[in-house]
Parts: sequence; structure tokens; C-alpha cells
Amino acid sequence: MVTAPHLLQYEKALINELHIKPDVIKRAKTILSGIDSGSTGAYTHSQGLQSIRQNVVEFIKKRDQDTDPEFTTQHIFLTNGASPGVQMGLRAMIRGPQDGIMIPIPQYPLYSASIQMTGGTQVPYLLDEETGWSLSVEELERQYSAATKNGTNVRALVIINPGNPTGQVLPKDNMKGIVDFCHRRKIVLLADEVYQENVYTEKPFHSFHSIVKEMGLSESFEMISYHSTSKGFLGECGRRGGYFQFSKAIDPDVQDEMYKTASVNLCPNVDGQVMVDLMVNPPREGDDSYAQYKQERDDILSSLKRRAVNLVKKLNSLEGVSCQQAEGAMYAFPSITIPDKAVKEAQTLGVAPDMLYVLQLLEQTGICVVPGSGFGQKDGTYHFRTTFLPPDDKIDAVCERLEKFHNDFMTKYK
Amino acid sequence: MVTAPHLLQYEKALINELHIKPDVIKRAKTILSGIDSGSTGAYTHSQGLQSIRQNVVEFIKKRDQDTDPEFTTQHIFLTNGASPGVQMGLRAMIRGPQDGIMIPIPQYPLYSASIQMTGGTQVPYLLDEETGWSLSVEELERQYSAATKNGTNVRALVIINPGNPTGQVLPKDNMKGIVDFCHRRKIVLLADEVYQENVYTEKPFHSFHSIVKEMGLSESFEMISYHSTSKGFLGECGRRGGYFQFSKAIDPDVQDEMYKTASVNLCPNVDGQVMVDLMVNPPREGDDSYAQYKQERDDILSSLKRRAVNLVKKLNSLEGVSCQQAEGAMYAFPSITIPDKAVKEAQTLGVAPDMLYVLQLLEQTGICVVPGSGFGQKDGTYHFRTTFLPPDDKIDAVCERLEKFHNDFMTKYK
Repeated sequence: MVTAPHLLQYEKALINELHIKPDVIKRAKTILSGIDSGSTGAYTHSQGLQSIRQNVVEFIKKRDQDTDPEFTTQHIFLTNGASPGVQMGLRAMIRGPQDGIMIPIPQYPLYSASIQMTGGTQVPYLLDEETGWSLSVEELERQYSAATKNGTNVRALVIINPGNPTGQVLPKDNMKGIVDFCHRRKIVLLADEVYQENVYTEKPFHSFHSIVKEMGLSESFEMISYHSTSKGFLGECGRRGGYFQFSKAIDPDVQDEMYKTASVNLCPNVDGQVMVDLMVNPPREGDDSYAQYKQERDDILSSLKRRAVNLVKKLNSLEGVSCQQAEGAMYAFPSITIPDKAVKEAQTLGVAPDMLYVLQLLEQTGICVVPGSGFGQKDGTYHFRTTFLPPDDKIDAVCERLEKFHNDFMTKYK
Repeated sequence: MVTAPHLLQYEKALINELHIKPDVIKRAKTILSGIDSGSTGAYTHSQGLQSIRQNVVEFIKKRDQDTDPEFTTQHIFLTNGASPGVQMGLRAMIRGPQDGIMIPIPQYPLYSASIQMTGGTQVPYLLDEETGWSLSVEELERQYSAATKNGTNVRALVIINPGNPTGQVLPKDNMKGIVDFCHRRKIVLLADEVYQENVYTEKPFHSFHSIVKEMGLSESFEMISYHSTSKGFLGECGRRGGYFQFSKAIDPDVQDEMYKTASVNLCPNVDGQVMVDLMVNPPREGDDSYAQYKQERDDILSSLKRRAVNLVKKLNSLEGVSCQQAEGAMYAFPSITIPDKAVKEAQTLGVAPDMLYVLQLLEQTGICVVPGSGFGQKDGTYHFRTTFLPPDDKIDAVCERLEKFHNDFMTKYK
């Protein structure tokens, strides 16, 4: 690339005066050189820039030790965050109320909302709180059979791993059982893996792509996997960067239709695309920025882990509260005992009992958590979802305020 | 705002070494001070940042000399470009195939595609090429009555002004007739005004918002208007910035539902939101950047105008080609005579005759235009859409290649 003299001067000032590291400038140039227009202000390919999709492919291949030359950039769609990609996937699969999508309970309500907007049918399956929100294939079979008996054509299974709001990280054997279930039942797996970097136990994250490969099913297994720049240690959610990956067994005609659908919105925002590039292709050892990158990444992740442990410990110390370990993601999802008197008051007010709890919490402490009823929960149980995102120096105070509120609430409705 | 010492040093370097104008830095600070998180990396309100929506409201009020205190930021939704906003509007209005949306023919295919994806019915009305692609209320009445007779419940009328692909700018009287039609028929007006800055004749652009106000219908007229950062003289299409405006007569319950729908995607990308801010609140006289801004804006718009005139002139000089003046937008949409022999060849190949023409044009010259059949056209007529976006120093060569191709094509199929 030829650089004009005034640009060289500009670069020098960036490095000397603004202390921008040289590899950052090099990276910016590399990204721009992958854009035909040479600018982040122009439309791109509707699936996103080829150069960035190439880096996504390499990221996945490296993560999953995959060397399949047939897995290429045509299988990657960059998106404005994971959510629009999920909606595209659901829209492609739902033709009407006869089509069912299996979703976990509790689940991040993107799925229930999108299924409803698209006119399909929810086929809920329960996660088992007592065993750390584990996912049993027997439960999948049970709900699948019940839905099929009712005339629902089950088209897809949604798995969120690590879980939102539940935080569980799926073990390998369990994932194999899930893949086997989808394969036997000929349903598409929608693998929401946006929290793949947020793991706080010794249990490692495995992508479903790697499991499918290990099982030798790459040629026949239909799956869409999702990732995002909004989570992990980046947390760049306002950029709306994300991607989804088609497994190569998905019919090229389906991919063509998805491309056509994507083209209605022209392209994902380019700054978000660039953010995806930074996520999948971070500074490497030897790069000027590597030390700083590593430090920030490790600090954020170890702080999240520390906060996860402390928050769950605090929650478990409260009367009538029980909280599973947050193995991953960014949330604790405690079960709370709500006294009968409070349940009755909620009924009188026409709100869910856990909504009564969280509204009073908000009013009295300013702490905002989401009631379990927003995610779905086993009948007769109550929960709320709280994040452990407040910084280290604030989370203790948050826990204290929560504790005081909780004790007052339990006394009030005793 | 207190600024840390190292930030002051940073600012100084930006001004002295990188020649960033001081008002640019001030603007960046103002934008950041309107964001609770202080960062463009975090989620915002699902309708977009309050501070930027406030600037959109002020932009519209200034443009339309509107002082209505009841028109507020609650009526503005920032979006990832205009397209997702259009789809949200259509989705809100279409319940099933019984619901019809009136769309111009020819039209930018966002509308036909979105209506089809949403399961509604297109109710096309023809623009009249001979009178400069004018829009007659009689034609609207005719198509409305025919659709209603067929059992279609017409819910909305789409107007693209300035037109895409046709480039016409609607005169005020015509707009009043359209508003009156929608008001009498109780249908929602979807006003696509993304080309409002791209006007090349003495006929000024009027927003439908201003017309409705002038007609005294603000309290009762239901309308959604669209704008975007992708057009005008900015052309920052890769940012995916845009907004839509609800007229205040739209039921607050509908607005609440739209807000809920928007929240499924969390928020529009923040860099795109910032781009909207720059569009609606450009540098003003007295600002350090004003002279440069004005110069660039005027250069771009006068160059577009010059190219529009030259391109249309060139097209009209070709055998069997007739092109209306491009009053606005970014396109010429000439009618082309396709010889019978070429029409027969197209039929044999199973493609539209104008598709045969544009494919040969692409193959032989590298010039890419869009066949009229992609936009819809009166039966038996053929068109293509071409932009006048190639820069001044290239457009003459483009015209020459087009002319040579066209003459060869006409000779070949004579």
C-alpha cells in the first residue's frame, strides 16, 4: 500500500503524540485494505466483508482444530449483534403455527419473543435446577414426543451454552447426547454460544461445531451457531457486532435464501464488522499491543470470576434463597422463597410474585434485576436474574443493600 | 465536565498534530456527555439515545417550522439505517394476506420484499412516466377500490419522495392530495424521505410532516416518516444510521408495541446513532468546521446535479432510449426499446428482456445497472436504473462505454 506523505506524518503523530501502538495502525490498514471502497462508510457484501469473514473462519478452525477446506467464508454471515441472526434463522424455519422450536426454560426471551413474532410455536423443555441447571436428553425426548403428538412439526432446538440466565456450561457427553438427539430427530440445532469466553470453572467450553466434528457428523448435521462482540471480555454491545455460522450440511439453496434475506437490509454496520475482526483476531504474542491486551483480558475475566463466586456465596447466605454456581455467562439466577403473604399481595395487584419482589427491590434500593417469570421457570418456583457486572469496588455494597432489602422483605411478609 | 490532565494533552495533540478542529472535539464531548455509560460501546435505550433523538426532533421542527411541544423524542426511533425501520412498520401493520400495502411501480424492492416476507399483499399503483413519473390520486383511488373489492384490507400507502428509482420530486399540491386520500381512506402513510437532501431542480423538497401540519391534520393523521445517513451528501451507508418518526396521531399503545419490538434487538448500533446526530445537527456558521463542511456539502451536491443532467442528456441521445429528468435521489431510470429479436432471445433464455440487456452490458463493459423488472414497470416497457454516483472524471467514460454498447446491441438485434 502506498501511503501519501501527509498520512505518514499523521501516523507519526498518532504514535508519538497519542501513543497509539504501531500494530494498531498496521491493523487498521490491513482492515481497510480488505475493503474495496477503502472506507468503513460504504456498504459491504450483505454477508459482511470477505476479509473479516475469512478471519472468523480461521478463528473457528483454530478454536476447534478443524482443517476442513470445505468450511469457508460462504458459511459465515456477519450481523448487527447475534439477535438479528437468531431472528433470521427462526424466520427461515417457521412457516406457521404448525412449526415448533424447542427452547430452554428458563431462557433469554429473545427466543420466545422472536418465535411469537414469526408466528411459530414454542416447545419448552425444562433445565434441571437441582443438578446445576443441567439439560437432560430424556427431557428433550419427552417434550419432543409431546409436541409431535399434538401435531407440532418440531424444526429446531435452541441451546444456550454457557446458559443465559442460568450460567451452566455443558459437559461434552451431554453435548454429544444433544447432537445425537437432533440428528435422529432431523431437527436443526441453533447453538447460542455468545458467552463462550465467559467460563469461570475448570469445565472448558466446547463449541457444538467441535462436537459435531468429533462425532464424525460434519457432512450431515444441520446447525447454526451464534457469536457476538457484546459479551466475553470485550462487552462491546453498542457496536452491534456478531456473526452466525452455517454448518456445511445446510443446503446451499437455504444459504442462498438467507443471503437474499440479508440483502434486504443491505449489510451489517461496518464498525460492528470491524469489532468482530478484533474479537476473532486479537493481538498475538510479539505484537506491540499484546502485553496490554493480555493484561486487560485476564484482569476482566478474573474479576468476573471473583465476582461470580462472591455474589453466589452472598445469595446462598440469604434466608430462603438458593443459587447454583455461575459456571459461565454473566448472571446468577437464584431461586427465592416468596412468603405466602407476598404471593397473595402479588395476586391482588395482578403481577407475578417475583415481579412484586424485584419492583420493591428497585424502589427501595435502586438495584435492578429481572424477574424469573421473564425467562420462564418451573411452576411454583420464583427466581430473579442478576448480573455480576458491577465492578469489584461496588459489588460488595450492592450485595449489602440486597441483603438488607431481602431480610426486610422476608420479615414484612412473614 | 472535568477533563483529566492526560486527556487535555491528548486533545492538544489532536488539534496541533492531527489538525482536528476544536469544534469536532467539543462535539465528541457533547455526544459522550449524552450517554450515561460515557462510551459508544454500551447498549443504549432501544429507541436510541435520548440526546440524539432530541437533536432529530429539533432538526425536524426547524426544517418544517413546527413548534408543537407535543412532538417529542418519544416519536423518534433511531434504527440501523432506514430499512429495518420500514420492516418494523410493515410488520406492525400486516396481520396476514388479507392486509394490503400500496406501493409505487416502479419501487425500490425493499417494500415488495418486506411485504412478501411479512405475509401481506402488495397493492401496486403506477407512476406515470410520460409526466415525469408523477403520482396521480386518481390512480391511487382506482387501485385502492380494486383491492378493496377483492377483499383486501388496505392498511398503508408507501410514498418514496424523492423517488427511487424514478427520481421525481413531488409538488406540494400533489402531496396534499395524497394526504387527503390517506385521511379519507383511513390508511397509514409510510413516507420514505431518505433522499430529501438530494434535489436537483428548483422544485423544493417538502416533508409530508410539513404538509400534514399545513393542512391542519396533525391531530388525526397517522404516518411514519423515514430518513437515513446513507444518502444525501453524507452517503455514510456502511454506518447503518437512520431514524423513523411517528406522527403524534399514532396511538401510544402502538408506539409501546414498537418499542417492545425494537427492544428484541436491544438497540441500534451506536456509531450509526452518532452519524444521525452529525446529519441532523451539522456544523453551523461560526463553528471552526463550518467552512469546510459547507464547501464539501456544496461541492458534492452540485457535482451530483451536474452528473444527473449530463447522464440524462446522454441517455436521451441514444437510439430508442427516453429518460425523464432526475429531479432528485441518485438515479436515472431510462425507458429502453428492446428490439423484437432480443425479446425473443430473452424468452428462449428464460430471462426478462431488460435483464438480457443489463447482463450483456455488464459482461461487455463492466458497467452494472439494475433491470427495470427488479423494480416493477408498466407491462411491455423496459427500463434500467443507473446511478450518477461515478465521480465527474469517470462518468464521461462510463457514458461513452454505455453508448457504444447500446449502439452495438441495437445493431445486433435489428
